[in-house]
Amino acid sequence: MKARITVTLKDGVLDPQGKAIEGALRSLGVDGIASVRQGKVFDVELASADPERAKATLNSACERLLANTVIEDYRVDVI
Amino acid sequence: MKARITVTLKDGVLDPQGKAIEGALRSLGVDGIASVRQGKVFDVELASADPERAKATLNSACERLLANTVIEDYRVDVI
Repeated sequence: MKARITVTLKDGVLDPQGKAIEGALRSLGVDGIASVRQGKVFDVELASADPERAKATLNSACERLLANTVIEDYRVDVI
Repeated sequence: MKARITVTLKDGVLDPQGKAIEGALRSLGVDGIASVRQGKVFDVELASADPERAKATLNSACERLLANTVIEDYRVDVI
């Protein structure tokens, strides 16, 4: 079973990396982009085929390692 | 108009960061995870409201800055 975890910064948290990308796109001449915010994505392959158990495993992985829940939100999609 | 760009490593490209995450999850006692591959996500806000023009802008941003198309695939979703 496969799943995708998406970790994004919470609203209001400053994103210097996104700002740097905005600046770089502007200097490259790519116009029309108002703002960029960068996040992370994890494509996970699971040993178990039970969706409930998989979801519990993935939430635990996010809480304990993949996301900093003080400043980041995460979303788990089992594919 | 908003869009999400997802950049992932192509199949067959080694992902040491993903391997490190697998190891870390194992040492934390999170069982049942067979493999992890890490990618990037960019949440972009666009000035234009024209979907065709937005898609062209985003593809140009990916090709020129956001993705290394030798080893990475990208996907643009206009939301």
